[in-house]
Amino acid sequence: MSKGTVVLAYSGGLDTSCILVWLQEHGYEVIAFLANIGQDEDFDAARKKAENLGAKKVFIEDLRAEFVEDFIWPAVQANAVYEDRYLLGTSIARPCIARSQVEIARREGAQFISHGATGKGNDQIRFELTCYALYPEVKIIAPWRIPEFYNRFKGRTDLMEYAQKHGIPVPVTPRAPWSMDANLMHISYESGILENPKSYAPADLYLMTKDPKDSPNTPDVLEIEFKNGVPVKVTKVKEDISMSTPFEIFSLLNEIGGKHGVGRIDIVENRFIGMKSRGIYETPGGTILLQAHLDIETFTMDKEVRRIKQGLGIKFSEFIYNGFWYSPECEFVRHCIAKSQENVEGKVQLSVFKGQVYILGRESPKSLYNEELVSMDVQGDYDPVDASGFIRINAVRLREHHRLQGISNTKN
Amino acid sequence: MSKGTVVLAYSGGLDTSCILVWLQEHGYEVIAFLANIGQDEDFDAARKKAENLGAKKVFIEDLRAEFVEDFIWPAVQANAVYEDRYLLGTSIARPCIARSQVEIARREGAQFISHGATGKGNDQIRFELTCYALYPEVKIIAPWRIPEFYNRFKGRTDLMEYAQKHGIPVPVTPRAPWSMDANLMHISYESGILENPKSYAPADLYLMTKDPKDSPNTPDVLEIEFKNGVPVKVTKVKEDISMSTPFEIFSLLNEIGGKHGVGRIDIVENRFIGMKSRGIYETPGGTILLQAHLDIETFTMDKEVRRIKQGLGIKFSEFIYNGFWYSPECEFVRHCIAKSQENVEGKVQLSVFKGQVYILGRESPKSLYNEELVSMDVQGDYDPVDASGFIRINAVRLREHHRLQGISNTKN
Amino acid sequence: MSKGTVVLAYSGGLDTSCILVWLQEHGYEVIAFLANIGQDEDFDAARKKAENLGAKKVFIEDLRAEFVEDFIWPAVQANAVYEDRYLLGTSIARPCIARSQVEIARREGAQFISHGATGKGNDQIRFELTCYALYPEVKIIAPWRIPEFYNRFKGRTDLMEYAQKHGIPVPVTPRAPWSMDANLMHISYESGILENPKSYAPADLYLMTKDPKDSPNTPDVLEIEFKNGVPVKVTKVKEDISMSTPFEIFSLLNEIGGKHGVGRIDIVENRFIGMKSRGIYETPGGTILLQAHLDIETFTMDKEVRRIKQGLGIKFSEFIYNGFWYSPECEFVRHCIAKSQENVEGKVQLSVFKGQVYILGRESPKSLYNEELVSMDVQGDYDPVDASGFIRINAVRLREHHRLQGISNTKN
Amino acid sequence: MSKGTVVLAYSGGLDTSCILVWLQEHGYEVIAFLANIGQDEDFDAARKKAENLGAKKVFIEDLRAEFVEDFIWPAVQANAVYEDRYLLGTSIARPCIARSQVEIARREGAQFISHGATGKGNDQIRFELTCYALYPEVKIIAPWRIPEFYNRFKGRTDLMEYAQKHGIPVPVTPRAPWSMDANLMHISYESGILENPKSYAPADLYLMTKDPKDSPNTPDVLEIEFKNGVPVKVTKVKEDISMSTPFEIFSLLNEIGGKHGVGRIDIVENRFIGMKSRGIYETPGGTILLQAHLDIETFTMDKEVRRIKQGLGIKFSEFIYNGFWYSPECEFVRHCIAKSQENVEGKVQLSVFKGQVYILGRESPKSLYNEELVSMDVQGDYDPVDASGFIRINAVRLREHHRLQGISNTKN
Repeated sequence: MSKGTVVLAYSGGLDTSCILVWLQEHGYEVIAFLANIGQDEDFDAARKKAENLGAKKVFIEDLRAEFVEDFIWPAVQANAVYEDRYLLGTSIARPCIARSQVEIARREGAQFISHGATGKGNDQIRFELTCYALYPEVKIIAPWRIPEFYNRFKGRTDLMEYAQKHGIPVPVTPRAPWSMDANLMHISYESGILENPKSYAPADLYLMTKDPKDSPNTPDVLEIEFKNGVPVKVTKVKEDISMSTPFEIFSLLNEIGGKHGVGRIDIVENRFIGMKSRGIYETPGGTILLQAHLDIETFTMDKEVRRIKQGLGIKFSEFIYNGFWYSPECEFVRHCIAKSQENVEGKVQLSVFKGQVYILGRESPKSLYNEELVSMDVQGDYDPVDASGFIRINAVRLREHHRLQGISNTKN
Repeated sequence: MSKGTVVLAYSGGLDTSCILVWLQEHGYEVIAFLANIGQDEDFDAARKKAENLGAKKVFIEDLRAEFVEDFIWPAVQANAVYEDRYLLGTSIARPCIARSQVEIARREGAQFISHGATGKGNDQIRFELTCYALYPEVKIIAPWRIPEFYNRFKGRTDLMEYAQKHGIPVPVTPRAPWSMDANLMHISYESGILENPKSYAPADLYLMTKDPKDSPNTPDVLEIEFKNGVPVKVTKVKEDISMSTPFEIFSLLNEIGGKHGVGRIDIVENRFIGMKSRGIYETPGGTILLQAHLDIETFTMDKEVRRIKQGLGIKFSEFIYNGFWYSPECEFVRHCIAKSQENVEGKVQLSVFKGQVYILGRESPKSLYNEELVSMDVQGDYDPVDASGFIRINAVRLREHHRLQGISNTKN
Repeated sequence: MSKGTVVLAYSGGLDTSCILVWLQEHGYEVIAFLANIGQDEDFDAARKKAENLGAKKVFIEDLRAEFVEDFIWPAVQANAVYEDRYLLGTSIARPCIARSQVEIARREGAQFISHGATGKGNDQIRFELTCYALYPEVKIIAPWRIPEFYNRFKGRTDLMEYAQKHGIPVPVTPRAPWSMDANLMHISYESGILENPKSYAPADLYLMTKDPKDSPNTPDVLEIEFKNGVPVKVTKVKEDISMSTPFEIFSLLNEIGGKHGVGRIDIVENRFIGMKSRGIYETPGGTILLQAHLDIETFTMDKEVRRIKQGLGIKFSEFIYNGFWYSPECEFVRHCIAKSQENVEGKVQLSVFKGQVYILGRESPKSLYNEELVSMDVQGDYDPVDASGFIRINAVRLREHHRLQGISNTKN
Repeated sequence: MSKGTVVLAYSGGLDTSCILVWLQEHGYEVIAFLANIGQDEDFDAARKKAENLGAKKVFIEDLRAEFVEDFIWPAVQANAVYEDRYLLGTSIARPCIARSQVEIARREGAQFISHGATGKGNDQIRFELTCYALYPEVKIIAPWRIPEFYNRFKGRTDLMEYAQKHGIPVPVTPRAPWSMDANLMHISYESGILENPKSYAPADLYLMTKDPKDSPNTPDVLEIEFKNGVPVKVTKVKEDISMSTPFEIFSLLNEIGGKHGVGRIDIVENRFIGMKSRGIYETPGGTILLQAHLDIETFTMDKEVRRIKQGLGIKFSEFIYNGFWYSPECEFVRHCIAKSQENVEGKVQLSVFKGQVYILGRESPKSLYNEELVSMDVQGDYDPVDASGFIRINAVRLREHHRLQGISNTKN
């Protein structure tokens, strides 16, 4: 008798193929679920493989458009960056995938959800918190946290052996000495030889971006038009080619960014579970968008609103990184950030060259930039005498402090 | 009879030369003060010029070493960046200059301090708040805010005319159609043709950095060693050349960064007085240091300390930008940030190439990175089963929220 | 010939009566504007007085209902408290008054606005920032900052003399040795004998609240019902008397709070202009509402949303205190806070007694409180074993830190 | 053969007595540890009881003085309050107790630590995180999270039965229908009949404070003297009785606060594990100190330092509540807060009456309050004209915003 139905996040790879079989071995019926979020994958082959391994059903969902609109766009609005550097390409993919997985589980009446994420990483948390938030009664089967499983499969050899025994096709190409996660927004690389934080990443690691040494010697110039803080049109200026659906916009930015080697970082980051890990990321389109959005936002947003919004964006990034996309706080902050973007509108021109994004100029119908007011040549509606009072009043407190402190410690 | 003695921040240029004369015309004795903070200047010529124009005394102070140690280093510790992009090269120079100016004023018994900063900018505030903080009884003469002065000198022509009339040497080379402020840390460019936020900056504007198009086709690899969050040694790895005094370290980083075109930005920023302005900056050495420091800091600092410190760093950057270097809050935050840097120690290897800084690896005796703990191949002192409980407890709140909300709105 | 029309914020008192006349003396036509925001005033007498003194028109506006709904209610939603203690009764009244004054100025085509606020206080800023925000072209006449005025009127004697000379009725009762500002929300007392921060406030100072020594020996029990974070009904439980319009609700709370001596504080606060001042406040109804709102909010709002909202509320309080009610940042934060209140709904029971508010119990259809989940007697949908994993994972970071630090400094 | 030695946090009550026996039953040697942190307890009886039940050793440690100095004092400096209301009396006691327990475990060579905290509460986390931080190799035995234990002891009856069977003295007085935690700082009450958030707390629940209805009809007037942000002397003004050691100071404040019914609150709070719980607290001395410290702090601390420190204090409170007293972030914040207190020095006079604390006046050698500067009667070193410029510059941004927005939405 079946223990119930499991929807398994299936990648087509060795790990989740073994899990697919193992779950059946342990009495579950398995629905294989494979999300297309822009990774390079032979989806038909994966479907066939899952079917051959006994999957009751196989769902392959093309989530690319909703990944851009529902997840990447809010991250763009927020200037979402974790710990000053990481653009959260994996973090925002997880709730997108899990949301779809939950929909299937509910629709198919499955009480269980399973995935192949490891027990030391962030992804297990991102997957499962999304599941618990959207499907509170769900039961999670995380084999890499089940002693019976992880004690049996201590290394890749054990998986290979199990595969051979159960007719699971074994990869013929040797595995890269690191692991990798790819989607439309980025590719991340970690573990294996990268675990030594001192070792350089090999030059041939990167799949999404050209090495800047080999990238073109002439820049591409782009114009990105924003409305409500998200891009609505991207134009290659010289070629006068434009894209205007979210998916096309982001794909074009990826192409240009990739061609010029934009968005490579090598960092040590703090996982939610409290350990430091080393990761290498390439985020070509996202990096261009971050720079462009920062520019148009500062151009159109009030200074003090910007300060508050900056703080909310940092919190937002932490929530996402930690797996709380579907949480009251993240929904609240997302709403506030979206509100702040109502006037973030206009065009940014930039060039992309040798791994860099250079802002060239910007214009907006909603700008708070007042050329006459700021001009050094025109007085405009501004009386310089006012500045004296402004400074003197700002100094009141400093002078009082000095009165108390004496000047003894002016040099620290 | 003299109205008293003024210490004038003298640059050697047309504006402050006219002010020097104008102040004497209005009955003040003038001490010219010129700070060497690394700008490209003929200091002897400037001294002679000031003497010829009647300055009672001329003080030229070499503040370069203290600028690096007392101002740039704390900014490095803080990862000080204003509005996500500006590295504050001018902002931190002002209190350095004004501190020295105040010392001279006190020593020379001058009751007045004067400067040539305009009435719409940030620098007037940064100068004067420093003066009021360190010399509360001081009186400030800011000619560009005195109607009698600014009504007389409405444009450059008026200054030229006044100069000719009063024997002030008039610049023979045509002026760039923008203004510029240079010091050891950066050069900023603004106003003039740059006031149109849509116009591209001319390619020949930059003086401190090479155009990445013309920069070398091979990277330089550096190793930067930090202690207490500041660099104590920089090594050109291939050449095995090292520097280890603050001034030499920073100069070498400037040289390398400049050679590879690092640290150019074109931004619109929010001035303290509430207007937006467009500025172009090049900060070669500072940009390398920011990346290197971010790396070693995250490698050695506890995650939650980092979060708090990141917030303090943002506040610190705002204080500096607004002119409050010498304020109780800035002193307090500086102290806290310095405290956070006690373990920020180790070596970062990076390459500099075509406008970019690429972190390659890092090592530290104080790292909190635990290779065994994070390894995918070794379990280490970590039980994956714990993660299940961790996730389930984190989900308690999300499931309660879901209970209240229903699932109707899962898609926003 | 007239210099133009001034709308003067007129209080009926000696100062603004003198200003009314002085403005006319200086060539302005004056419209007297008197806002009724709940202060104890003979409005008819004030109208007659202004007319007698030559006011071209007199507008007396009853702003009490809009003061409650548009200003007090958002403050309640925010738990607005400045520097941990002050409930902002004056701060939120200023934009309410100035908004109405601007409407009259626009309607009547007046280019000038004037007020009697002093040059050292916060109120001048609150008035004028509201005016500039809502009527950017307006010109402000602040006599207490005009040397001609304040040099002429150095003390009360000068005003009295001027009054007698110009037929301005002179107050017959001796003035209290402090100044006072009253509205529906509170009365504030400052200056005069209160300027010595060490001196006790006299027992007979308070006008809005009973001395707790003389207040009733039996409490009143109230039930306050909230929707969207604002009270929609208040019931005196024993008497079964209810109020349900904002004005009535707030008036009843004031009555009960006043009767029991609730809401008296004596504080030193930091003015926007950088000086410390001592103020004494009584805010009876507001204090009850703050306690009740805190209770229902924590009962119904998610923990992490609460944290973010608490931070926004603190910022909001600072904006209000500093006079930025009508600013982009305050509008933004008000919007975010209002969003956070959508589920803040339910009933709080409390007793009011001898200066204190005691929460007794609460209930809500939107509560996130789950009696079964939290119960010590029932396990509910909660597995205690999960907590072990939760704690162990939270300890990962602490143990790593310890590994680095050693245990040498556990005692600090 | 023994499985090893456990140091058990022993209270003398039924639960931990059963645990003491149960642990022995399961092969452990047990050291009973009982901390005296000011609770009302017969320590000799408890010792005897533990010995009779087979404890290998019994340690009873008087931690009262260090509880005040090392834990309550930092909380006072921070104005530590969780979620705007709870003064953290239990939260700060846990690390104090666990620190001592760890010292004993280390000294006695015990590898295990055990406690009787439940699996749904905060205390288990506070205990254990302290243990893991100070003794990373320790193993925790938390019986209420061990299925074998909690399935056996489903209710009080099971414990009573086990007690009778194993010669554990059974309490003769009926248990209160709630649970309680007492120490020098406060008593907390929760669970049982209090779990219904709507039910009033019974009048006879409170043990540490008088009902304000029955409290004296004349106030006590106190003077509290602070240095470095902590009280160094408390004087009953009328009686001229003073205390000046930390323990005596705090005890006197408790006595006075208790006598007048100060510090009772009834709240719903958010536990770390994500559930809401209802708690009732009485914190007499702590409440007086909070008010007094807020007063002297604002009197002596710069406004902007205060803002930053207020934010740090909120974070500090959350860290403590969640059990992270011994964490890098809490140590960092504690250091920063202590730094901010260097000038928090002076005397506050206050009266305590009927559940309330009324600040009466304050004085300090380090105050930033400048009576002349703030005076309405003296101009002092202040030019009111400066305020005009200050306001106009602050309005620049608001007027620009208005220019963009139009005046359409001035009424929201």
